[in-house]
Amino acid sequence: MRSGRLPQGVEWAVHACLVLALLRPDEQLPAQRLAELFDLPPAYLAKVMQDLAVAGVVVSASGRHGGYRLAAAPGELTVGRVVRATGLAEALFVCTEIRGRGPCAATPEQCRTPCAVATVMRRAEMAYLEVLDAVSLADLPVPGGRAAAEQWLTAHVHRVKERS
Amino acid sequence: MRSGRLPQGVEWAVHACLVLALLRPDEQLPAQRLAELFDLPPAYLAKVMQDLAVAGVVVSASGRHGGYRLAAAPGELTVGRVVRATGLAEALFVCTEIRGRGPCAATPEQCRTPCAVATVMRRAEMAYLEVLDAVSLADLPVPGGRAAAEQWLTAHVHRVKERS
Repeated sequence: MRSGRLPQGVEWAVHACLVLALLRPDEQLPAQRLAELFDLPPAYLAKVMQDLAVAGVVVSASGRHGGYRLAAAPGELTVGRVVRATGLAEALFVCTEIRGRGPCAATPEQCRTPCAVATVMRRAEMAYLEVLDAVSLADLPVPGGRAAAEQWLTAHVHRVKERS
Repeated sequence: MRSGRLPQGVEWAVHACLVLALLRPDEQLPAQRLAELFDLPPAYLAKVMQDLAVAGVVVSASGRHGGYRLAAAPGELTVGRVVRATGLAEALFVCTEIRGRGPCAATPEQCRTPCAVATVMRRAEMAYLEVLDAVSLADLPVPGGRAAAEQWLTAHVHRVKERS
């Protein structure tokens, strides 16, 4: 797991994206507002949102009227993409090739084929992500209810200025 | 992920168990020796081995001639059990029920059914563990080769004293 990221980051990321999925194309929501909505520590949630932006799951506009919105339609963004963006997928199994170390180290020739341990772990990871890649943000209900979230959003979204 | 555990702990745990799988029923190997074999930091590996002992994957005998051995035959211990023992499985998704927080919080009634996000994440976790539960330690080759490991073990194992 990357330094500074909490396992809870995954929960926050998916819930945040489900709320952003309710925005109209010309709307965006500041990270600070998302933190209020879920009563989360703003600094940690901001890090999670930055991860999502780097991964291209959300886009952000900076400035006083800035905020986040999804980078694509909710039906086109899978839970798997959100989870990958948090770094959880890379943290599942870290192969450091310890078979190549110590008094009984495998030879470089033996290490040309993947380690059997890493192979099994990778297969499990693929099964994990396969489940998450089959579910899009549009497939999930908004926890807490869509109506309440939409009402709250109406009061707190920023409208994107039309380009002149 | 539990405090103090590294993601590499999973790699170390599985490799350590594959070596312990080569021991005869009356043999045990000190954690310090396992650390030498893989050229790993002894203190961290000792923590991983303690996790495995707590989970019942290995058993340890303390004292000057103490050491670790598998708690069951290699064919009866799955990679899934080893991975669970490291705490990785619990760290995959942590649900803190954030849907029950903030201005649009779900009601206690709504929270009686599991959160849709947690449900999807749990389904993925089950797919992950299902792959690992289908592979036993006996199914995996010893990375680096069985012959070299057995030769090294002959020189470094402790024989369990026969009870008088």
